[in-house]
Amino acid sequence: MADVGALSIDPDRVLADLDALSRIGRDESDGGIHRRAFSEADMRGRRWFTDRIEEAGLEPRIDGAGNVGTRWPNRHPDVPCVMTGSHLDTVPGAGRLDGALGVIAGLEALRVLAEHDVPVARDIELVNFSDEEGRFGGMLGSQAMSGQLTPEFLERAVDLDGVRLTDAMAECGFRAGDALAAEREPGSIYAFVELHIEQGPMLERGDHAIGLVDAITGLFRWDARFLGEANHAGTTPMDMRRDAFQGVAEVSAQIERILEEHGGPRSRATIGRVELVPGAANVVPGEARFSLEVRDTDPRTLRELSDAFRRTLSAIARRRDLAFEFEVTSEIEPAACHERVMAAVAGACEALSIEPLQMSSGAAHDTQMITRIAPSGMIFVPSRSGRSHSPAEWTSPADLERGANALLHTLLELAR
Amino acid sequence: MADVGALSIDPDRVLADLDALSRIGRDESDGGIHRRAFSEADMRGRRWFTDRIEEAGLEPRIDGAGNVGTRWPNRHPDVPCVMTGSHLDTVPGAGRLDGALGVIAGLEALRVLAEHDVPVARDIELVNFSDEEGRFGGMLGSQAMSGQLTPEFLERAVDLDGVRLTDAMAECGFRAGDALAAEREPGSIYAFVELHIEQGPMLERGDHAIGLVDAITGLFRWDARFLGEANHAGTTPMDMRRDAFQGVAEVSAQIERILEEHGGPRSRATIGRVELVPGAANVVPGEARFSLEVRDTDPRTLRELSDAFRRTLSAIARRRDLAFEFEVTSEIEPAACHERVMAAVAGACEALSIEPLQMSSGAAHDTQMITRIAPSGMIFVPSRSGRSHSPAEWTSPADLERGANALLHTLLELAR
Repeated sequence: MADVGALSIDPDRVLADLDALSRIGRDESDGGIHRRAFSEADMRGRRWFTDRIEEAGLEPRIDGAGNVGTRWPNRHPDVPCVMTGSHLDTVPGAGRLDGALGVIAGLEALRVLAEHDVPVARDIELVNFSDEEGRFGGMLGSQAMSGQLTPEFLERAVDLDGVRLTDAMAECGFRAGDALAAEREPGSIYAFVELHIEQGPMLERGDHAIGLVDAITGLFRWDARFLGEANHAGTTPMDMRRDAFQGVAEVSAQIERILEEHGGPRSRATIGRVELVPGAANVVPGEARFSLEVRDTDPRTLRELSDAFRRTLSAIARRRDLAFEFEVTSEIEPAACHERVMAAVAGACEALSIEPLQMSSGAAHDTQMITRIAPSGMIFVPSRSGRSHSPAEWTSPADLERGANALLHTLLELAR
Repeated sequence: MADVGALSIDPDRVLADLDALSRIGRDESDGGIHRRAFSEADMRGRRWFTDRIEEAGLEPRIDGAGNVGTRWPNRHPDVPCVMTGSHLDTVPGAGRLDGALGVIAGLEALRVLAEHDVPVARDIELVNFSDEEGRFGGMLGSQAMSGQLTPEFLERAVDLDGVRLTDAMAECGFRAGDALAAEREPGSIYAFVELHIEQGPMLERGDHAIGLVDAITGLFRWDARFLGEANHAGTTPMDMRRDAFQGVAEVSAQIERILEEHGGPRSRATIGRVELVPGAANVVPGEARFSLEVRDTDPRTLRELSDAFRRTLSAIARRRDLAFEFEVTSEIEPAACHERVMAAVAGACEALSIEPLQMSSGAAHDTQMITRIAPSGMIFVPSRSGRSHSPAEWTSPADLERGANALLHTLLELAR
């Protein structure tokens, strides 16, 4: 048996796999990858993945939610397993790394462990989660596994084109109702870890190779509306206006103050969408609809920010004689990573002589769901310029190699 | 002959005419009036108008731009005339007063003068100007009369549906090229006065029956654009964003300061249109396109405001690391009303025991064009809640009567 501490993944194999997978569903005109969940390209991606599993001498597994993977060495059925995984589905026009890296690096880790017949005390399970990108509004695979699906959701879920989840799954040979059976018992997973690109600029800015994630941000998202009065922009004096856009602009100007007073260094607030009615150059906007999205890793901070924004928006509306309405369109609780997994990642980094940056994940991931049933954590690698969900997504081969090795050694720490 | 000072219009006739005209082109579902220039309804409106002229024993006149009207008593061909007029065309879904009031009150004034055979030293000419509402991008009739049209404009002008002005006029029996011949010699018009609804809230606020207009605001309109970087709203820290919307919000917040420092009480600035790209709740806006429209009655103030906004927008862009571009999409010089016409309006108000409010027009009018060739002015009547370009447009019958009488006596003062 090899010296376990000296084990390392084969970077050529990882890069070749990423290359091969990136050709599935790729639009040659712009290089964007299109593997929406339960599309024909997604199914080809899954087949490519199970072929690789079999090629490695392992056995493919699939559950009712369509989560595909394998388990190695499959000799410890009664011991809580170590799990790793990510997703092969993509947003439309995606890059080659988001999701794919975690699945392929997990596969490579199992290949290396199997080739060297490394002794472990726990099985390691690898999972490609279904529909992480939320074609049908959630994270189907990891929600199923963590017991957060209902029959009503499965019946009602539709994509933006109105296609029903039940129909899309049926076309791929799945019965949506079976997704409920994908639930795992709390306690059946000893630890879960996901390798992912950062999709942000922090690692690149600090010149760090690895991010040791300690929490995944939660968020609230509002569809908000100020109602004033549409008036002629020439004949209505400034002091007689009820300009709904001025209200939104003032909210925007208050974001910095609110985050300073009520948030922390990990707080983010974004107005990403604004629609003015009637929306003409010569009419004072009578109505402004806008989105407000606020994120933080601390549930208490998030609640305080929600209160602060509510107070500020109400006060702006009162002062400007506007009506104010909002609807919570999304609310996700932050998820803390588990000490057990963070220690294993830190140990793996030490073994690889890498100084990781402890950080939070600003984006949502399957890990967020799995925290509900298992001690979980994440490993990040840098994203050039923070770019993601775009063909511009890029991580250097050296960083990909370091990330895959960090995953390998984290799994080893957890499973041995 | 009657006592000229005691002459007054017949309010029933004016209201009946407004009623009859409002039925032409009216959409019964919402009461909105649709008499776009050179539409079938506009032509019916013109025929209704010439029928009324003939009914009053006067002779209809028409020029190459399709301006329709009459001249009374038509005995002073070599003396510069007094002119009044407005327009019968409407925006889609208009109210019954914008434009129509000035034409009908002018007609009623001529009817009263003719009925009483009032002696005048100058002919009084009444004009319904073609396409004031700018279906083809300008104010065709008054621009033609003031010599501001070119053959190129006539050839190229199209409406929002791509219909060419030449074709629309041809269908109504006009040759667009003839519009050039509608030009009048400077000096041929002794004075021009237009009665119009205010389309703003000032008269109502101050409980004034009549507005004595001393200037018509000019404006500049920009299509502006901030370019930053679209980034993930969760993974991008606040201090690493190049948020294009934050730029627009800051412009909005600076409007009050800029108007206070560089404008006057008549200055207006409006951001009426904002489009964010990509415009999603979870993406930091990488691009913001917006309109900025600024109005004032003083050309120097308008230039100073233009400089101030340019400096501020550039500074915001520099500070926020955004690119900034803008295009001037419209630029209209303010027009001062003439002392001669203002004195006549003031005299008419005095004769009627009305205390007028001296004010500016925040909206554009045919008068703005006619100032180029003749001493001009305007009379305003109140608009309830400032509403216009809508079926909600309303002025009390008593105010309509006072306005028509003010026009009658202004014309008398000028023509006698």
